[in-house]
Amino acid sequence: MTVQDTRTSASNSSNGSNGSEDSESSRAIGWHKGYVEGSRPDLRVPVRQVHLTNGDDVTLYDTSGPYTDPTVETDVRRGLAPLRENWIIGRGDTEEYAGRPVRPEDDGLKHTSPRGGLRNLDAVFPGRPRQPRRGRDGQAVTQLAYARRGDITPEMEYVAIRENVAPEVVRDEIAAGRAVLPANVNHPEIEPMIIGKRFLVKVNANIGNSAVTSSIEEEVDKMTWATKWGADTVMDLSTGRNIHTTREWVLRNSPVPIGTVPLYQALEKVDGKAEELTWEIYKDTVVEQAEQGVDYMTVHAGVLLRYVPLTARRKTGIVSRGGSIMAAWCLAHHKESFLYENFEELCSILASYDVTYSLGDGLRPGSIADANDEAQFAELRTLGELNTIAKRHNVQTMIEGPGHVPMHKIKENIDLQQEICEEAPFYTLGPLTTDVAPAYDHITSGIGAAMIAWWGTAMLCYVTPKEHLGLPNRDDVKTGVITYKIAAHAADLAKGHPGAQEWDDALSDARFEFRWEDQFNLALDPDTAREFHDETLPAEPAKTAHFCSMCGPKFCSMRISHDIRRDHGGSQDEIEAGMAAKSKEFAASGNRVYLPLAE
Amino acid sequence: MTVQDTRTSASNSSNGSNGSEDSESSRAIGWHKGYVEGSRPDLRVPVRQVHLTNGDDVTLYDTSGPYTDPTVETDVRRGLAPLRENWIIGRGDTEEYAGRPVRPEDDGLKHTSPRGGLRNLDAVFPGRPRQPRRGRDGQAVTQLAYARRGDITPEMEYVAIRENVAPEVVRDEIAAGRAVLPANVNHPEIEPMIIGKRFLVKVNANIGNSAVTSSIEEEVDKMTWATKWGADTVMDLSTGRNIHTTREWVLRNSPVPIGTVPLYQALEKVDGKAEELTWEIYKDTVVEQAEQGVDYMTVHAGVLLRYVPLTARRKTGIVSRGGSIMAAWCLAHHKESFLYENFEELCSILASYDVTYSLGDGLRPGSIADANDEAQFAELRTLGELNTIAKRHNVQTMIEGPGHVPMHKIKENIDLQQEICEEAPFYTLGPLTTDVAPAYDHITSGIGAAMIAWWGTAMLCYVTPKEHLGLPNRDDVKTGVITYKIAAHAADLAKGHPGAQEWDDALSDARFEFRWEDQFNLALDPDTAREFHDETLPAEPAKTAHFCSMCGPKFCSMRISHDIRRDHGGSQDEIEAGMAAKSKEFAASGNRVYLPLAE
Repeated sequence: MTVQDTRTSASNSSNGSNGSEDSESSRAIGWHKGYVEGSRPDLRVPVRQVHLTNGDDVTLYDTSGPYTDPTVETDVRRGLAPLRENWIIGRGDTEEYAGRPVRPEDDGLKHTSPRGGLRNLDAVFPGRPRQPRRGRDGQAVTQLAYARRGDITPEMEYVAIRENVAPEVVRDEIAAGRAVLPANVNHPEIEPMIIGKRFLVKVNANIGNSAVTSSIEEEVDKMTWATKWGADTVMDLSTGRNIHTTREWVLRNSPVPIGTVPLYQALEKVDGKAEELTWEIYKDTVVEQAEQGVDYMTVHAGVLLRYVPLTARRKTGIVSRGGSIMAAWCLAHHKESFLYENFEELCSILASYDVTYSLGDGLRPGSIADANDEAQFAELRTLGELNTIAKRHNVQTMIEGPGHVPMHKIKENIDLQQEICEEAPFYTLGPLTTDVAPAYDHITSGIGAAMIAWWGTAMLCYVTPKEHLGLPNRDDVKTGVITYKIAAHAADLAKGHPGAQEWDDALSDARFEFRWEDQFNLALDPDTAREFHDETLPAEPAKTAHFCSMCGPKFCSMRISHDIRRDHGGSQDEIEAGMAAKSKEFAASGNRVYLPLAE
Repeated sequence: MTVQDTRTSASNSSNGSNGSEDSESSRAIGWHKGYVEGSRPDLRVPVRQVHLTNGDDVTLYDTSGPYTDPTVETDVRRGLAPLRENWIIGRGDTEEYAGRPVRPEDDGLKHTSPRGGLRNLDAVFPGRPRQPRRGRDGQAVTQLAYARRGDITPEMEYVAIRENVAPEVVRDEIAAGRAVLPANVNHPEIEPMIIGKRFLVKVNANIGNSAVTSSIEEEVDKMTWATKWGADTVMDLSTGRNIHTTREWVLRNSPVPIGTVPLYQALEKVDGKAEELTWEIYKDTVVEQAEQGVDYMTVHAGVLLRYVPLTARRKTGIVSRGGSIMAAWCLAHHKESFLYENFEELCSILASYDVTYSLGDGLRPGSIADANDEAQFAELRTLGELNTIAKRHNVQTMIEGPGHVPMHKIKENIDLQQEICEEAPFYTLGPLTTDVAPAYDHITSGIGAAMIAWWGTAMLCYVTPKEHLGLPNRDDVKTGVITYKIAAHAADLAKGHPGAQEWDDALSDARFEFRWEDQFNLALDPDTAREFHDETLPAEPAKTAHFCSMCGPKFCSMRISHDIRRDHGGSQDEIEAGMAAKSKEFAASGNRVYLPLAE
């Protein structure tokens, strides 16, 4: 694999590049954006290249987008370059069209003066003008349709390089419905990624304002911040003002697929009165969002009228916002869900933009007591039916999962989902393995997330420390993403994902050899690792010290191992033979186990 | 169960009691120290009583000691009251004796002037004078010996009340070697606790200064701080100056069992020269610490000469400090470990104080690459032999475990340990499920800890965010303890521990009913939960609001569930019948799903 390197004057560490110059060789130590070239010049897959002090390079998956490439100028008012535009146009199966007019109520402004609503950033996204695009004659322009007919799209090649697998594997997994490649034709800015159990476990970060708090800038900033730390997709769950405009800013600047729950915006359009929702309002919202470029949509079409009473004796009833909206609608009208009733039509809309379904688990358990109950699994069976219908329409589909589940009930969730949904990718929220630790639910859920991902979940929706308590700020977003990257990588290791352990091995080698800077640069969060080391041993020499603050310089556990390795690194026979010699040499050297390492 | 209550003027929230007065009833809301009385007046088991706003009380396990009882005056210069003294004396099988004289080198002062070493707190612990105690005629005065002859000691009754099981269960588990009750006859201050898979999963917190940093006060403070947040035992791993005196302060003030690694102090006595260690110096150190009251000791007697070469080709060699010290000694002398050779004599010493063995895993893996390798499992088999010998001497014994282990290799660790060590309690460090996240190893290891505890590990040794990087400060200690309490409780739930889920249920009920103060007070960390809620919704009314910051007041997911429950809370038939009626009533009420809750 040839990697192009963007190392120039990467000095802005908050922008992701980070390095200290190695004075002897002028080789930059640290990490830098690199690209792996594909079969065409416009197919360049970003990687994080970590340059170690021992001369080795380690190549890591990179989600941070052009923001960490010092050779690319980015401007949130212009948006990112439309990386995929030529690929989409080149397929010749889509057309631009006038699109649905944007209305004040799209931003929740039905009842306010035209000037009342927007603040800070420009009201309308100021970037390049664009018209929405969709499949000609309503045809399915989805990666699933292409895969099924045997095509390997540039998007598929791109993710194959990212995942270090053959493009055919990507195509076949998508064709079988075991993986999705969310990529709306109206979101050409994204760097394609894939979600499926055969691939690296992915992490989603939620952002979004609410009626209570936060602004457009904050949400755009949270998106770039989340992807900097490793979020593979971002869901914009805004429910407050400027919902359309916030989403536009987020989409135009996002290098990762964006997911939404259209029902949230639809509810805003009817002033929060669930019973006033209609299929028409919902459908119009889906089209609005599809035209903007939303890559996947959570659709709670599995909350059926007859399932609602199953939640009556639950400890925490319905905790999914989408689930409770649909339950309220079903009860108000005593009719079957309009999402379920119109699901085929919805499929044909999504197919014409390549919006991926994320079939929502509206009846997911909200407490340990409610895990794996009748309501939850009844809905799952319906999601299985809907999955089959969606596939018939060539719509890529993943299935959402819980929630709050104690450890011993986790495996049943993934096993049942895989069976019922024909191995469609599972996308779970945690699960949280206990209810007793509000303010630490990134951890209660990180435990469950790692386990369920090991057993086959393809994407994990992060949980932040603020879960149940408030809206996450920047720090919470980072903590949530890092926690979930840990869970995802732990699962990649446990699944024996090819190459996953190389990262651990490189870091452990650095640790064993006291290459502190390499440890930091290989860490999931180099900044905090370095900061923590500084706290105890702030001086620069400590960064090359052959001991750490745990034992101090007097006796270091790892030093003896270096002696052992030096003297017993051969075959088992050589090792046995070396034992007595070692004893003598050891005594001769003054019996010190903490001699300076041979350089 | 009758619980005595200490509610008086509990106003010092940093002291653990926390409450806001309910003005209508003068019933204190919040949590308070309570006691459950046993069969004798001096047997009072502390609990944390949480008083909910709905009139319910929830009783939780409490490790915080007398410090959170406003009716008890504590003074770190006097130490805690010797709760168990009469029980120990009453058994009539121990005697006081002059004890080993304390020497300057016990505090690492061999080469400095007598005044040079100690700072801050008094050089010698100023509390009540005491002479050490040991078994008469060298007899075993262990809880194991008592259990085997059928006795139920006050200590056993105490833990039976704590664990909500019959005293016979405690006795039988100890007699079978499946549980340990660490309780040195020279540590009468502790509130007895039990470690075994049949009981609640326990958490150990490490404290201790090093040659690089920290003082006596800091260590005493870390100990009380760790137990306040739920540490069940504390290990003092000091390696720096004042090692004897620090331990004395910690022991006299600790309500929980204290563990140590005597090898660390022995090494200080020979100036860090491992090869100068002798059985005599080690034995003298063990006696020194046993006389002080150390409740369990890590002994790395399983690191045999022939195992050392097995580590030569490891990625990270030997990472256990004790393991590498013993490996260095074995290599220097090319002789078998003096700990292994003198193990029987060590057993008879430990038996005469009731010091519990924690058989150390000196060859535990220090990286994902080294997990479950030959060196690790060879040592485990030796620990199995030693376990049998220890039991023959009536010494209570637990077995230490790894370390760094990917998820798919965790179960083999506990299964093998249980088989080889005849179900002796397993006491594991994590394990860390990936190496790539320094600064977040509380999380990488919390995942592994929860899993291995579910599968049978009895006690978890915490890992703090500073692991691999520096020495933990107060915040790190708290984060480590809370993370591990989550792992332990998640495991209790998964094991179906009787009563474990009541805590989750109480918190989820409070969440569902918008009883915010109850949620905070039931939380593992009430302070942070309250603080996070304040961040988004600081006003006091928000603490009784029937919505949260996630959705805001306009539409709340959980509100619809209240309507459903109200209308469909009966039998399945009643629920079905109520559906149509519900529809009508819903329309009549204006179709609002977010009506104020009926009070």
